[in-house]
Amino acid sequence: MPTMEIWLEYASTYSYLTVARVGGLARKHGVTLDWQPFFLPPVRDQQSLGFPFPEASAKTAYMWRDLERRARRYGLPYRRPEQYPVNSLQTIRVALLGAREGWCQAFTEEAFRLHWTQGTLIGTDENLQAALRAAGQDAARVISAAASPENKEALKAQTPRALERGIFGAPSFVVRGELFWGDDRLEDAMVFAVEGG
Amino acid sequence: MPTMEIWLEYASTYSYLTVARVGGLARKHGVTLDWQPFFLPPVRDQQSLGFPFPEASAKTAYMWRDLERRARRYGLPYRRPEQYPVNSLQTIRVALLGAREGWCQAFTEEAFRLHWTQGTLIGTDENLQAALRAAGQDAARVISAAASPENKEALKAQTPRALERGIFGAPSFVVRGELFWGDDRLEDAMVFAVEGG
Repeated sequence: MPTMEIWLEYASTYSYLTVARVGGLARKHGVTLDWQPFFLPPVRDQQSLGFPFPEASAKTAYMWRDLERRARRYGLPYRRPEQYPVNSLQTIRVALLGAREGWCQAFTEEAFRLHWTQGTLIGTDENLQAALRAAGQDAARVISAAASPENKEALKAQTPRALERGIFGAPSFVVRGELFWGDDRLEDAMVFAVEGG
Repeated sequence: MPTMEIWLEYASTYSYLTVARVGGLARKHGVTLDWQPFFLPPVRDQQSLGFPFPEASAKTAYMWRDLERRARRYGLPYRRPEQYPVNSLQTIRVALLGAREGWCQAFTEEAFRLHWTQGTLIGTDENLQAALRAAGQDAARVISAAASPENKEALKAQTPRALERGIFGAPSFVVRGELFWGDDRLEDAMVFAVEGG
């Protein structure tokens, strides 16, 4: 089956639209998802790109409006979280462990669902525990393993891997070295995976 | 007929995809286009947003790749211009005069076509003269009128009007106060114009 890398940052807003849709699209197109959780700030810092959504800017106001419209268009439940951005680092470390162990998708879908529909924010213990339960994982074991030096190093190593691929934002999709950025390009990436595969 | 404001900056890259498609889409959907040429740098400066495509960044490299892919997907001819960004100020002044006089669309379509398919760049006399010919205008008269204090002031007045609408980039579309940003949202804006109109 053709494979698509999905590069996700758990504080990213548009990533909700992708996480809520990508499982169904991957099944429909017959594409295997290769989950690549990463921490976006060091990737942007390396490129002298600032935070993409400065507080109180028109660009940020538009992002919220657009996100709500897109969720409605896709028929997805949507509730604007009370905090933005959230501290996503621990969740990303857990997700990376999940990617290595094979339960990243179930964990990620539940973490985003809670954040974007229930007000249980990514970065809180409640979100983490519930998402691990949904993925069938023992929270104590996973939280300890995610904080291990090996796993922290594995996450740091995601930064140069992202840079090699030309990544500068999230969500991003990579298919046979071809980069697609943004939820808007998810279908294009899927089609490219299938057609050229 | 429902109306859609189309806010265009003539140095904007993705605007090519919009200019090449918007006339046909407007006819298909029965939407009247209200052309709003504007100069983007002061709009972004007011919001402390920098130049969106810093030279030699991964984001800029991606934009070129994505633009080419999108043009191919839409079946549009595409030839990457040798210069970026170009000095678009005079062309925008002319386009604004065209919007007031009713020939903006014909002028704009030819200016972008020459820039994006023939290598005759926006900002050159050759581009300006040819685009004016395509719009059936007398170049000497128009170039003089475009440089008049009245027209220069009219262009400056576009900055606060853009800011009022929450605009921060180009192309942007405004329908009944609802903002849509980017060529990716052109169809959504058209549908919104028709459905709520």
